[in-house]
Amino acid sequence: MEPLTLGIAGVGTVGGGLLELLTTNGAHFANIVGREIRVTGVSARSRDKLRGVAIGGFQWFDDPVALAKDPSNNVFIELIGGEDGVAKAAVEAALQAKKHVVTANKALLAKHGIELARLAEKNGVALNFEAAVAGGIPIIKTLREALGANRVRRVYGILNGTCNFILTQMQSENRPFAEVLKEAQALGYAEADPTFDIGGFDSAHKLALLTSLAFGTKVAFDQIHVEGIQTITEADIEAADSLGYRIKLLGVAAETETGIEARVSPALVLKDSAIAEVSGVTNAIAIEGDFSGSILLVGAGAGAKPTASAVAGDILDIARGLIVPPFVTPVAKLKPHKRAKLDRHYGSYYVRLALYDKPGAMAAVAKSMGDQGISLESIVQHRPQTLHAPRTAPQRSKDKAQPVIIITHETTEEAMRKALAAIEKDGNVTETPQMIRIEEL
Amino acid sequence: MEPLTLGIAGVGTVGGGLLELLTTNGAHFANIVGREIRVTGVSARSRDKLRGVAIGGFQWFDDPVALAKDPSNNVFIELIGGEDGVAKAAVEAALQAKKHVVTANKALLAKHGIELARLAEKNGVALNFEAAVAGGIPIIKTLREALGANRVRRVYGILNGTCNFILTQMQSENRPFAEVLKEAQALGYAEADPTFDIGGFDSAHKLALLTSLAFGTKVAFDQIHVEGIQTITEADIEAADSLGYRIKLLGVAAETETGIEARVSPALVLKDSAIAEVSGVTNAIAIEGDFSGSILLVGAGAGAKPTASAVAGDILDIARGLIVPPFVTPVAKLKPHKRAKLDRHYGSYYVRLALYDKPGAMAAVAKSMGDQGISLESIVQHRPQTLHAPRTAPQRSKDKAQPVIIITHETTEEAMRKALAAIEKDGNVTETPQMIRIEEL
Repeated sequence: MEPLTLGIAGVGTVGGGLLELLTTNGAHFANIVGREIRVTGVSARSRDKLRGVAIGGFQWFDDPVALAKDPSNNVFIELIGGEDGVAKAAVEAALQAKKHVVTANKALLAKHGIELARLAEKNGVALNFEAAVAGGIPIIKTLREALGANRVRRVYGILNGTCNFILTQMQSENRPFAEVLKEAQALGYAEADPTFDIGGFDSAHKLALLTSLAFGTKVAFDQIHVEGIQTITEADIEAADSLGYRIKLLGVAAETETGIEARVSPALVLKDSAIAEVSGVTNAIAIEGDFSGSILLVGAGAGAKPTASAVAGDILDIARGLIVPPFVTPVAKLKPHKRAKLDRHYGSYYVRLALYDKPGAMAAVAKSMGDQGISLESIVQHRPQTLHAPRTAPQRSKDKAQPVIIITHETTEEAMRKALAAIEKDGNVTETPQMIRIEEL
Repeated sequence: MEPLTLGIAGVGTVGGGLLELLTTNGAHFANIVGREIRVTGVSARSRDKLRGVAIGGFQWFDDPVALAKDPSNNVFIELIGGEDGVAKAAVEAALQAKKHVVTANKALLAKHGIELARLAEKNGVALNFEAAVAGGIPIIKTLREALGANRVRRVYGILNGTCNFILTQMQSENRPFAEVLKEAQALGYAEADPTFDIGGFDSAHKLALLTSLAFGTKVAFDQIHVEGIQTITEADIEAADSLGYRIKLLGVAAETETGIEARVSPALVLKDSAIAEVSGVTNAIAIEGDFSGSILLVGAGAGAKPTASAVAGDILDIARGLIVPPFVTPVAKLKPHKRAKLDRHYGSYYVRLALYDKPGAMAAVAKSMGDQGISLESIVQHRPQTLHAPRTAPQRSKDKAQPVIIITHETTEEAMRKALAAIEKDGNVTETPQMIRIEEL
């Protein structure tokens, strides 16, 4: 059989990992797919920068688009990144030239996935993107193929290693967000401008792709409700812990009566749930199928080698001729993404209030909840520093706020928001209430 | 596109689940694969027994082999079971008739997998068996395809829900093996004759298939070292717990210097490992790839619906034309399974001794270990019932055995076995020492 020839655009961390993988395991591929997989051309921002990677044997292209069009390769590997610009131009050029494309570019797919998928289907080629979501975890293939016989009810997971590292460290070392963020930056887990990760946007890109694959809907990044982890304090983590929970940044997508509820936000999960145990930069994704039940996949969500493993898996599928529509359902049959009203979200909530220590304050809070039909599972009033300070007689002060933690029974988000607005309006709290959804897993 | 037509042999638990799935999600399939999937013929032991499953619309076959040969279907689904006999004859007949085959029959594949795979490859058809290992968990597809770019270093997991249920209950409720086994039987998790499950043989069937897929070797069920959970006592579970471990029945296959070490046996795993948290009838399998790192899959290992999900996933692949050699590597290129010497296994061990309470007994034990170059990480001498009995002055008795728990540093299995033989020969123990490997995860 003819060798499969690759043009690789972008030789950074992932591209370097891929070249190493193709060298190390090349003989293995020939053995299992019966044909050689050979890199013929590469392109990168600077030819001189590529120390440590042997690219001497490949044809060099200054312009990735030229590489994408060049007949010397029949599969184009896009590892440039960026939601527009040259990455998009190169992928389009490759698809138009009837070349299979493999990409790790979640931003590009979250924004232009549908039009690129249409182009791939029209030209009868693959557009594979296993590496775009959760690094080495084969979640795309699992949704596309292995669990394809199921109607998915919910998909959720820890999709960003940076956030999970920060939350895990805050938990295990009892340290504040800002301090752990600095550590993550020093370790290379977080960018100098960390907004994209900690604001939840990276998770939302991935969730947009998973939602489409799971529910047969068009990719709709702008329909995802996004909250980051910046507002999570040590007090939240400590209180959650004492109540039997961990706080995780979860991406969740579920089909509801009013449409698809897709959200990225911090969530409380029970400590003895499998996902609570996923610590550090590890990712984990669960798929709930109507027949499979819950299937959980756990592994490295980033890094040169795991990401290269995913890219190479996509290449192997192409070498074997296993071509599936990029979003499982052919683009022409994808439904529009109908966004559920978040107000109609139904679940339990964690609320942390900084309550003025004055008579009637707690009664007013309870009344505001009751007015919205919200019943409370537990109320814990922590004296500040109770855990660490020496036991002295409690001091009361009108000026000092007392942290109060409330766990509600199930209610709607609309009721919850109205109750919290009323509580804030009453003037009994010193700051805007903290509200975190409790995720039933 | 032409409908894909199915002949289903065996309409028990899984077959019934499959028929339900095909009915429920049939329209969904047509949407994603662009063709109808239609059952045309069925065969089962007794036509009269099939209450609750609507089979009126299908052609009935008394003989599964006749169904396998009949031109009215182009995919044969074998859900009969059994390592020989009619299941084997029917699968062979289908493959010879150039029909794709989907089976959930691990016993058949563990015994005849290679010859059946050869027949499938010769006839250019699929032999898919996702449901044969770990129910709804897509482990076969993950090894065959998604992680195909990796050289696998180790694959291990909890492959039998019955055993995991028993061990979990013994742990959480502090109950003896025999009692929990009875409960498992009452719940339908264990057979009247439970040997196949609790003796480790069911896990070994599955491990034989995983080993072949992971290492490109011929299936070799008879080369697997098998130990069951019958010998695990409450004392072991309690002692492991107090030292930070859980006891799990693991199937483990790894490539070593002397060959492939494939074994099913109880193992101690650290409590904070992901696999320690897998409780009840749930299954979990980890694959360690040279690039992917460790990827863990968790889900339902049995049951009508999850197993049907796996069978249907295999059918979808066929409907899409995604055909991969049954054992990844074409049969002609599969290596023989070279069995590693278990004596050369290198790791830590848990040992429980029933030591006569007499002077010099412990010294003799320590000497036997030292003579084999084994260094000890910890020794705990439990007074019987220390945890539950009222504190009284310890009683010494020459006739009463004291449980002693030893955790060793890493050593070879050969050294370990020699040391334990010497300890037993010394006459200081009242029963054969308990030895359990500690699995580094």
